[in-house]
Amino acid sequence: MKILNDLLALTGVSGDEANTAKFINDYVEKRKNSWKVLPKIYSGEKFHDCILLKFGNPDIAVFAHIDTIGFMSRYYNQLIPVGGPEVIPGTKIIGEDSLGEIRCQVQGDEEGIYHDFPRGVDTGTYFSFEQNVRIDEDFIQAAYLDNRIGVYNALKQCETIENGWIVFSTYEEHGGGSMPFLLRFIQETAPITKALVSDITWITDGVKHHEGVVISIRDRLIPRRSFLNRVLDLAKESEIPFQLEVEESGGSDGREIQFSPYAIDWCFIGAAEGNVHSPDEKVSLSDIDSMISLYNYLLANL
Amino acid sequence: MKILNDLLALTGVSGDEANTAKFINDYVEKRKNSWKVLPKIYSGEKFHDCILLKFGNPDIAVFAHIDTIGFMSRYYNQLIPVGGPEVIPGTKIIGEDSLGEIRCQVQGDEEGIYHDFPRGVDTGTYFSFEQNVRIDEDFIQAAYLDNRIGVYNALKQCETIENGWIVFSTYEEHGGGSMPFLLRFIQETAPITKALVSDITWITDGVKHHEGVVISIRDRLIPRRSFLNRVLDLAKESEIPFQLEVEESGGSDGREIQFSPYAIDWCFIGAAEGNVHSPDEKVSLSDIDSMISLYNYLLANL
Amino acid sequence: MKILNDLLALTGVSGDEANTAKFINDYVEKRKNSWKVLPKIYSGEKFHDCILLKFGNPDIAVFAHIDTIGFMSRYYNQLIPVGGPEVIPGTKIIGEDSLGEIRCQVQGDEEGIYHDFPRGVDTGTYFSFEQNVRIDEDFIQAAYLDNRIGVYNALKQCETIENGWIVFSTYEEHGGGSMPFLLRFIQETAPITKALVSDITWITDGVKHHEGVVISIRDRLIPRRSFLNRVLDLAKESEIPFQLEVEESGGSDGREIQFSPYAIDWCFIGAAEGNVHSPDEKVSLSDIDSMISLYNYLLANL
Repeated sequence: MKILNDLLALTGVSGDEANTAKFINDYVEKRKNSWKVLPKIYSGEKFHDCILLKFGNPDIAVFAHIDTIGFMSRYYNQLIPVGGPEVIPGTKIIGEDSLGEIRCQVQGDEEGIYHDFPRGVDTGTYFSFEQNVRIDEDFIQAAYLDNRIGVYNALKQCETIENGWIVFSTYEEHGGGSMPFLLRFIQETAPITKALVSDITWITDGVKHHEGVVISIRDRLIPRRSFLNRVLDLAKESEIPFQLEVEESGGSDGREIQFSPYAIDWCFIGAAEGNVHSPDEKVSLSDIDSMISLYNYLLANL
Repeated sequence: MKILNDLLALTGVSGDEANTAKFINDYVEKRKNSWKVLPKIYSGEKFHDCILLKFGNPDIAVFAHIDTIGFMSRYYNQLIPVGGPEVIPGTKIIGEDSLGEIRCQVQGDEEGIYHDFPRGVDTGTYFSFEQNVRIDEDFIQAAYLDNRIGVYNALKQCETIENGWIVFSTYEEHGGGSMPFLLRFIQETAPITKALVSDITWITDGVKHHEGVVISIRDRLIPRRSFLNRVLDLAKESEIPFQLEVEESGGSDGREIQFSPYAIDWCFIGAAEGNVHSPDEKVSLSDIDSMISLYNYLLANL
Repeated sequence: MKILNDLLALTGVSGDEANTAKFINDYVEKRKNSWKVLPKIYSGEKFHDCILLKFGNPDIAVFAHIDTIGFMSRYYNQLIPVGGPEVIPGTKIIGEDSLGEIRCQVQGDEEGIYHDFPRGVDTGTYFSFEQNVRIDEDFIQAAYLDNRIGVYNALKQCETIENGWIVFSTYEEHGGGSMPFLLRFIQETAPITKALVSDITWITDGVKHHEGVVISIRDRLIPRRSFLNRVLDLAKESEIPFQLEVEESGGSDGREIQFSPYAIDWCFIGAAEGNVHSPDEKVSLSDIDSMISLYNYLLANL
């Protein structure tokens, strides 16, 4: 899990993913020759801060978003959210502006958020939760497990995938915006009919730690049932632990697949976390294992 | 109206339209040789559960969504809505899970919806209103007139249309998602500049039963006025009864035409119903006649 | 500023932009031979009420929306908003229906808006604020500075631009809908990687009159930071007065660029106004000068 630790050390709030993209690009370059299939890599300015890896002859893609939630400084000492961060007074946040590095605390509540840095901060400065990774026998706890674990899973799949796209998207936490051009590029390059969204979901009254990776029957949107049934049949066949989710709200990169001008089936599959969008996101290690195993099985068999 | 009765007997909540699609496909196969023009049929896995019929050389399309509202089981005995069903305690609903058929009642309110089936129900099971079709001299009353009547109208137009697409879409009740790929397919196959949305609207303080099919000047979205004026001129010329609608909210497949990457004019034209999204939807028979007649006139003259 | 005065005399609520489009088209035809580069003009029914001007070999586009907010008559004496107009009882509005010209007042509040015209008005009649242009040494005050100033700026850029698209869009005030087809047409004709949104923003506690054109770091959506940094570097280099905006809400044609199926960077740049969406919108004349100068600089150097 060294790579997961490295990913957790990066900041990269929605709109500012360049450094995270560079890290993933470097990692891919270093590792790609050890993978079962050598991918064709699409990245760079033409793809903004996204990265696409094409393995073999794809009919499926895995999407993992590389951005995180955070804050942005407004005027005076005001902050406004990027994505939907939990606003917990006293939370330590970090940023950098023209005068140097910044470490301070969040104050206020969702009606009005402030930072307590003693000097003025440049308007438009991004802030991230200060990272604090804690691992014990059962759990990993840190900021930004959503979606560093989804990215970690996607990178693990690179080792064994034979046919498929592994795609790193941006902006997911703040309404999206990269998926439409990624999907167009995919459909014009090596089209797919199926997609899996490698992302993190929520512990709820029906989804619990240690009970396996979550296959989402729906969040705010509803994947096509006939596709979902095929996923569920394979999941049962695999004997990998999994649990089902049915939620009324929430969304993912699946949203932009649903509304894309292509008939692509999609399904959200990912481990569940507690303390969502806080610096203390918490995920079961065995659920991460199930996630990686199930993607492995589905990419070979779906 | 046998075909309308058959359509009303089907269940097919958004995301689970496979059976309804199969029924329409079978109907088209059986009837197509009796139609004025033999259509080219596009359906099957590549089109998910949508069906496109191309007649002659189209410049116009009619869209009718085949999905319905309903409920889905969450955890324990919880239900969550699919689309926006009325939640009326005691309403009879039907579904089917791995243990067999289910018939029970809706309980609770929009803050928390439950079913009262005595055993546990599989997570993610779809529920529909139990059907009860009532026809008298003036009205039809049933669940799912929205949009079985729109589908019925579309199938009636198949009998006489010479040039145009007749298209059966999915997911309309739950935010959409099939229109973008249908529109792309149409524009790449035999492009259109005009579209009519064959769907059901609402009785309001300005829209009344028996006063004719409704031409919608706007709902949440606003069609282009210069196109609307052409539709209204033809409607007047036709001498078919129609009434005008101006609403601030509500939407249809027109939404995804408006936001599509093609310059396609659109207009919503359909009969109005009372008791919207309940098991007791009620539509005037003469308004259905006006709807069919006006589509007939517009498809020949617009 | 004669052309700005002429633009302010036009009505053209979202969905009803045909007259405004005709005015701009005529202006372009009259002036184009005096411009540094002769543009290729795309307009007419195929482009609905939008106009695209292609100068040289574009890699950038300027978008200015030509529609305005307003009202539409519903039933009886009800009005519903088009876009988000301020509802101030007593505000004078004008319209025209089958019986002739209408001049009356807005009554009520956002819960229920009415007009006080003595006779009944055709359902679906558009209303605009009555225009009253006031110019002094420092300010212009009028209805619809948003976005007649953005259009004025775009027309001024036509005089000197060598390579780029100048594009007049519709429907921006009411949720959009023309940008997707405009972007597709641009990308298939002479593709771009950069876009500037020529529109008007708001005076806030961090944005003030006379302090220069506003470069928006974010509204509800967030442009890519690496592109924004290039814009800011050039703005500093230009020595033209500008100020920064960071807002949590609000949107522009930039939204549809963000969600388009193309990797196009975008940034909102425009003067700020007080009394937003009222008949008394107020903009600093020097901020308009800064806006025109900065666009000029960026179109030559970005």
